[in-house]
Amino acid sequence: MSATPTDLRGREADAMARARELGASVLGTTSANPAVGAVILASDGTPVGEGATAPPGGPHAEVAALAQAGERARGGTAVVTLEPCAHTGRTGPCADALIAGGVSRVVVAVPEPTELAGGGAERLRAAGIEVEVGVERGAAEEGALAAWLTGVREQRPFVIWKAAATLDGRVAAADGTSRWITGEEARAAVHRLRATCDAVVVGSGTALTDDPQLTVRDAEGRLAGRQPLRVVVDRRGRLPGTARLLDQAAPTHVSRAGTPADLLAELFDRDVRRILLEGGPTLAAAFLRAGLVDEVLVHLAPTLLGAGSSLVGDLGISTMADALSLRIVDLIPMGGDVQIRLVPTRHTGGDQHADGGS
Amino acid sequence: MSATPTDLRGREADAMARARELGASVLGTTSANPAVGAVILASDGTPVGEGATAPPGGPHAEVAALAQAGERARGGTAVVTLEPCAHTGRTGPCADALIAGGVSRVVVAVPEPTELAGGGAERLRAAGIEVEVGVERGAAEEGALAAWLTGVREQRPFVIWKAAATLDGRVAAADGTSRWITGEEARAAVHRLRATCDAVVVGSGTALTDDPQLTVRDAEGRLAGRQPLRVVVDRRGRLPGTARLLDQAAPTHVSRAGTPADLLAELFDRDVRRILLEGGPTLAAAFLRAGLVDEVLVHLAPTLLGAGSSLVGDLGISTMADALSLRIVDLIPMGGDVQIRLVPTRHTGGDQHADGGS
Repeated sequence: MSATPTDLRGREADAMARARELGASVLGTTSANPAVGAVILASDGTPVGEGATAPPGGPHAEVAALAQAGERARGGTAVVTLEPCAHTGRTGPCADALIAGGVSRVVVAVPEPTELAGGGAERLRAAGIEVEVGVERGAAEEGALAAWLTGVREQRPFVIWKAAATLDGRVAAADGTSRWITGEEARAAVHRLRATCDAVVVGSGTALTDDPQLTVRDAEGRLAGRQPLRVVVDRRGRLPGTARLLDQAAPTHVSRAGTPADLLAELFDRDVRRILLEGGPTLAAAFLRAGLVDEVLVHLAPTLLGAGSSLVGDLGISTMADALSLRIVDLIPMGGDVQIRLVPTRHTGGDQHADGGS
Repeated sequence: MSATPTDLRGREADAMARARELGASVLGTTSANPAVGAVILASDGTPVGEGATAPPGGPHAEVAALAQAGERARGGTAVVTLEPCAHTGRTGPCADALIAGGVSRVVVAVPEPTELAGGGAERLRAAGIEVEVGVERGAAEEGALAAWLTGVREQRPFVIWKAAATLDGRVAAADGTSRWITGEEARAAVHRLRATCDAVVVGSGTALTDDPQLTVRDAEGRLAGRQPLRVVVDRRGRLPGTARLLDQAAPTHVSRAGTPADLLAELFDRDVRRILLEGGPTLAAAFLRAGLVDEVLVHLAPTLLGAGSSLVGDLGISTMADALSLRIVDLIPMGGDVQIRLVPTRHTGGDQHADGGS
């Protein structure tokens, strides 16, 4: 009944995919901690425990998974998206928990990038545990850990710019109306996306024109239990006290930040690691010009307006060869609309001719 | 060794799919005749002949397929996308050719819609041949026969509006440059698409700004043997004699038509059945406002400009609820770009609230 080595590798690959899912499932609830997922396999390869990072102060993924596995973890394998930490913060070191749990092997996707929490693999190896680091690293880095890694590397939150536009790139009609560009399915996806973010950001223009609530709601309009921070960039203090953004449905931060970088620094200090930029063309253009957009989600509706505001404001680009290049990551039909996910092919301004794309 | 009835049905379905392909392969070369495809199956279900409509004056699909099959057609089945004609035009009736060829069964997708050529099925049945009409009719009607059917029903050519745009819906940068919005793969697809059309249409604005050649060329820039008619709508006689559209690479028609409907009538009289509208935002808007666009192909590039001309000019729409609705037919990644194919959800103006989509 014992599994062959090939079987075990297959079990570990499945467990790593599941660990990524677990991490993604808690995205938006863990910052400033990373959204990690962990699976414990018994010595015969059977999954016996799984866990994901709890909100700050709560147990880390490995600890939750070990608690579920109990004695069945002995001689087994821990599969984790991020190297177990070796330091004591609000919780004890995960490496020690794994040692105490009795696992004989630990499989890690992404090595811990901070010095503070680093050394986990070393500590495990010192305890006689076999450790493999870098397994399916790319997938984990592009998944639930992307925002947190951006924070570690660039000391700023990860920025997702989301916009809904018509086929001719309009985000509002000539009279300013913008409800609704897309259908229910795409709008429901936006609510699910908001739930994975620590903050949702708009400019005062959008706040004044659309008076949005920017909360996470279900199809029946019921508020989700956890709400991301609502952020309005309102340098000139134009937001009226009656704005829906100031209601009690969710916390709101009114920022006087003068630049996207200032705003991101302000939010980073508040433990925000993943931002959904839902502002209009002006705010989007400011972030794009500053090279501070990490991912773009366009919900494109199969409609034409022929007039109205366009997707993005002035980028300081006057000729085709200087067009800002992105790369399409995926296309997902959503109801009658389509979601296009893209990443900029460069982060900052600089040589816009380099990697063309057109 | 004889095939079962189920086998034969399967063979006929395969043959019909192949017949549709054959029809599509000659699209752009047959007008004002329909682009028909035909396959002859021997009595045991083996394909023994295939054909497609030759250019006007040449043999029809059935005749070409019968010629290839010869004696093996006796007792066999003819599978055709359009009901064989019963009248003598420049060629003899196809129904008579099938009778003479000795087939015992004829499977037809689309019934002949014109009185002039109708009666084929009847004539075949009178000769003791089993005839089945309407097999996979929808697929054939939406395929190579669509343009010709539009001509029969509406006495005008079928119009495909094709445009290349950035993610923010720009078809040119602020300085007017528009080369190249999309990559090589999408541009090659445009050349293949032109080859399936009887005419390629632009307005004088595009002719003056871009000085396009509008010919069908391969990747090395070599001209294809057959070229669609190039059409410039130039009401005010602005096209200079030096325009590349007036070179010898392909025939050109300069139209003084005042409206899209007038232009289409003019081209219909010249046996044009399938038009590729490659004009700019103004011409596209005129056709859309007139409800004279049958299919939309947008080649969307993953780039942002933030300024420049938008995909489509004034549609007389001022509020979101009145947005012109289309339906996405398919999404095809093309190099780094994406091709979005759509059809308007209504043909003429009228109640624009009816089938929303947004």
